[in-house]
Amino acid sequence: MSMSLRGVFPPIPTPFDADENVDLGALSANLERWNAYDLAGYVVLGSNGEAVFLDDRERIAVLERARRAIPADKLMVAGTGCESARETIALTQQAAAVGADAVLVMTPHYYGAMMKPDGLVGYYCAVADASPIPVLLYNVPKFTRVDMDVSIILRAAEHANIAGIKDSSGNVAKLADIVRLTSAGFQVLVGTAGVLFAGLAVGAVGGVVALANVAPQQSIDIQRLTEAGRWGEALELQRQMMPVNAAVTGRFGIAGLKAALDMLGYRGGSVRLPLQGIDADDRDVLRDILIEGGVLGSAMSDTQEE
Amino acid sequence: MSMSLRGVFPPIPTPFDADENVDLGALSANLERWNAYDLAGYVVLGSNGEAVFLDDRERIAVLERARRAIPADKLMVAGTGCESARETIALTQQAAAVGADAVLVMTPHYYGAMMKPDGLVGYYCAVADASPIPVLLYNVPKFTRVDMDVSIILRAAEHANIAGIKDSSGNVAKLADIVRLTSAGFQVLVGTAGVLFAGLAVGAVGGVVALANVAPQQSIDIQRLTEAGRWGEALELQRQMMPVNAAVTGRFGIAGLKAALDMLGYRGGSVRLPLQGIDADDRDVLRDILIEGGVLGSAMSDTQEE
Amino acid sequence: MSMSLRGVFPPIPTPFDADENVDLGALSANLERWNAYDLAGYVVLGSNGEAVFLDDRERIAVLERARRAIPADKLMVAGTGCESARETIALTQQAAAVGADAVLVMTPHYYGAMMKPDGLVGYYCAVADASPIPVLLYNVPKFTRVDMDVSIILRAAEHANIAGIKDSSGNVAKLADIVRLTSAGFQVLVGTAGVLFAGLAVGAVGGVVALANVAPQQSIDIQRLTEAGRWGEALELQRQMMPVNAAVTGRFGIAGLKAALDMLGYRGGSVRLPLQGIDADDRDVLRDILIEGGVLGSAMSDTQEE
Amino acid sequence: MSMSLRGVFPPIPTPFDADENVDLGALSANLERWNAYDLAGYVVLGSNGEAVFLDDRERIAVLERARRAIPADKLMVAGTGCESARETIALTQQAAAVGADAVLVMTPHYYGAMMKPDGLVGYYCAVADASPIPVLLYNVPKFTRVDMDVSIILRAAEHANIAGIKDSSGNVAKLADIVRLTSAGFQVLVGTAGVLFAGLAVGAVGGVVALANVAPQQSIDIQRLTEAGRWGEALELQRQMMPVNAAVTGRFGIAGLKAALDMLGYRGGSVRLPLQGIDADDRDVLRDILIEGGVLGSAMSDTQEE
Repeated sequence: MSMSLRGVFPPIPTPFDADENVDLGALSANLERWNAYDLAGYVVLGSNGEAVFLDDRERIAVLERARRAIPADKLMVAGTGCESARETIALTQQAAAVGADAVLVMTPHYYGAMMKPDGLVGYYCAVADASPIPVLLYNVPKFTRVDMDVSIILRAAEHANIAGIKDSSGNVAKLADIVRLTSAGFQVLVGTAGVLFAGLAVGAVGGVVALANVAPQQSIDIQRLTEAGRWGEALELQRQMMPVNAAVTGRFGIAGLKAALDMLGYRGGSVRLPLQGIDADDRDVLRDILIEGGVLGSAMSDTQEE
Repeated sequence: MSMSLRGVFPPIPTPFDADENVDLGALSANLERWNAYDLAGYVVLGSNGEAVFLDDRERIAVLERARRAIPADKLMVAGTGCESARETIALTQQAAAVGADAVLVMTPHYYGAMMKPDGLVGYYCAVADASPIPVLLYNVPKFTRVDMDVSIILRAAEHANIAGIKDSSGNVAKLADIVRLTSAGFQVLVGTAGVLFAGLAVGAVGGVVALANVAPQQSIDIQRLTEAGRWGEALELQRQMMPVNAAVTGRFGIAGLKAALDMLGYRGGSVRLPLQGIDADDRDVLRDILIEGGVLGSAMSDTQEE
Repeated sequence: MSMSLRGVFPPIPTPFDADENVDLGALSANLERWNAYDLAGYVVLGSNGEAVFLDDRERIAVLERARRAIPADKLMVAGTGCESARETIALTQQAAAVGADAVLVMTPHYYGAMMKPDGLVGYYCAVADASPIPVLLYNVPKFTRVDMDVSIILRAAEHANIAGIKDSSGNVAKLADIVRLTSAGFQVLVGTAGVLFAGLAVGAVGGVVALANVAPQQSIDIQRLTEAGRWGEALELQRQMMPVNAAVTGRFGIAGLKAALDMLGYRGGSVRLPLQGIDADDRDVLRDILIEGGVLGSAMSDTQEE
Repeated sequence: MSMSLRGVFPPIPTPFDADENVDLGALSANLERWNAYDLAGYVVLGSNGEAVFLDDRERIAVLERARRAIPADKLMVAGTGCESARETIALTQQAAAVGADAVLVMTPHYYGAMMKPDGLVGYYCAVADASPIPVLLYNVPKFTRVDMDVSIILRAAEHANIAGIKDSSGNVAKLADIVRLTSAGFQVLVGTAGVLFAGLAVGAVGGVVALANVAPQQSIDIQRLTEAGRWGEALELQRQMMPVNAAVTGRFGIAGLKAALDMLGYRGGSVRLPLQGIDADDRDVLRDILIEGGVLGSAMSDTQEE
């Protein structure tokens, strides 16, 4: 596997206008701003991208526009996981056709316990067989309520076209096991900023973390410092970012992430029902957190420079 | 609300051929056989219909073909629940356009805890506002891992275009609460055969049960006996059906349901990955269960008559 | 197995005084009042009895006093389930020594997944081997987060000294399976009032329901009407009791049950930390529910007669 | 709070003989061996100590004997968490009386959702008020199915006699939050070896890890290397220990931990029902893991030296 996944990838949100229509112009504008940072690439249509809310046509439109805005030296990783191998393959092939470099395929989960280990491994192998581009496993029990066993990951990792995994379980011990038990070519990405340093320290090559949308430089710096062996500084920076991270994930969710982007001069926009925007009080709390974390001040001056 | 949901509705599977393509001919053939029974109607594209595995075009094709095969005096209830209100509305309107009588809308669930009670109520009201046909709530925690609170159900039930609920939680006490606390027009359907009698006894008007696919007459009889006050006989019949029901739901899943239909002269066909067909040993066990439950014998003679 | 468990058993609370000391006088006084009803017996030291909060000496003292207050023609079933077979056996033998007729043994659960099916069956068989009196299984996933598989129940049910089960899962389909798949001597008790009728209808012989503490006559009547084939009346009565039942279980918990008993002229008393008493507002809501359910009025006149 | 919890604490198992009786001689013998290592102290009667399987007399006997075998310069932390504040206080005071330096109090959990945040905080404060020695919170959702919110931990941490927490959730991000949001005196202990390095790196002062029973020196070295800023070596050592750790926790459980101790020349002995010993095949696998991890070889030579 020659594609390197080393580095930080923001899982970018999909901007909607006030009528909940996809706002492709806003998408481009955001990417142009993020392109100024030394990010390894982007995850488009992941969980933070509200991918499950989009129809097929919207998904392709988002990928097409994103690809045009993402320079060739940055990777575009497309979220293409659907419930059936068949649908996932179709979307994966379309993503490849519009220029995605790799696909991120979350575990199917609707049928939960009805789905056997062999079925799950078979699913990933079928997708990888049919995909023109490398496939990344995506374990995100917070949303899927499926937490893939290490044994299943190891079996899937043997496929030549399965290049790695994004693990968002937050379980660093498991992540370390995956690094330890897979061959060198299999690349592990941390899926949650709270364990970015810890994950990198046990052998992950990078991170796909919501935080990188609002604090790209800080996220990059956490990785750089870790790789330079300046672990204390890496941790201190991560610690400083934690309230910001909590605000744009668990506490205020995707609506909070979008509101934060709006405050920072990006274009977040609205969320789709059944999600709902955050109210004025929460917005004030969020603004304070961004300022205190040193994220809003610097971004504000960025904005003023433009 | 004038549409009556009284009676039994099989949640029909979607037949696939050996290449996992939708087999519309098999769908028609199955419906023609089921039409001989006094079923109230059908749920098309529910959980047993592997709806989450189909793309939009396939879903509409299935609904169109099913409508042609379903006589006007039987209801076609279309499963149209997607994750976003927007997608659910689009699919709901298409379902209405091809002749669905009502839609069954499962709880969105991907974002789980990020989704607030207001968002869920807002979701259902937005769908009901936009739907030309009545909307039924669909609570199926087994698959969605979201178990709607009675308080949320009561709020949604106030909407004039929300006609009822299919509850598959198996929790009869909750079902009784819903019957008790909603107005007379709100109709409750039992979603799991194991509590069909108990649900009808506490005021449900009918059932959407996988069992009705393989044992339509017995399912109808359980309701008839219950309504006639012959509760002991209703229960005895239900008890007799339980091993059959277990075999086509929890034990062998949708693959088992389809295999059973194949044995009974219907056309079940294959399932889509990540689900997998059942093996020869399980098939033998399943056949024995169908014979012992008195389901396969009678169907076999049906078949021979043709 | 000759002991009949047919009938209604209140799982009685353990009264504490204001200092959280066990109030044995209050326990006797309550039992004397309940003895006026045609209850089959009592469960002492069950979940509603806050058994997990008592030390061994307190448990024996409660059982001794209860036995003195319970006439010989009513059964005393003692909750004796601890985490280890060894401790459960010790407590079971002490319970037998002070006159318990049977023991109710909840599933051990602390080690959860570390405990294998063989270990759980072995646990129950070891207890049953050592117990001088019949053993009842107790499945209460609400508290233990362990929901015993039917297969485990069937294996344990083969032991000659395991007389039955109290199942509080609320899953009537499962309860019907247990009735169907065990031999005639194995007796099933419904563990939650919301499915008392449904459970009796599928073959349970009785119920151990918190409701019976505050509405003993109504609970008895639900069973009598069911057994007499007057199912509609049984259900109507159960329906009427549901708000009362909800108030003394899920809504206000054991503190609510005890507060209700205080209102009804029994002696409920306080709960032990980390549980807490209910506040004045909740107390008002509870009183209204008891009055509306027809429970408080009748009990009040009982009180006046004394 | 002047007591320092810095360092590694094995949560020691309680040896039982073939009849499941507590083997106090074996307990002493084990402690004498462990005393040769630079451990900060021991947790006696924790989850690995099968404390929930012991009666009160056995618990006190274990604490007494352990105290005699533990030198004064090592801390004895006693697990004393029961379901009620009252029982926990009684056991805590007895533990203090026999010389425990601190108590580790797991979250009460039987009544789960019925227990409110105020009740849980009240519980811990009541215990801390009554305890003559410092109290440590113990969050172990794997066993209790209660995962304390950071907000609850922060409220409890304000009590002057609550000195810290052992967190076994494995969630390093949460652990970092606790360190960040509590005052300097509040000490955090990592509860699972898989995140020992990561936890120390974000500010934990030590670890209470099952691994330390079978690999005390390696566990101590992970902490020493981390504190010396030699993080790469710390991680490499931790990585090497992971298969050993998995074997004596999740994979083979407490029975595996005891079997490993037997192999290493300690005295593990049997477990109590419903737990069960591991079979010969698993024992072979376990031995291979211990040898491969470099734990058995060195221990063997230790044994030979004696």
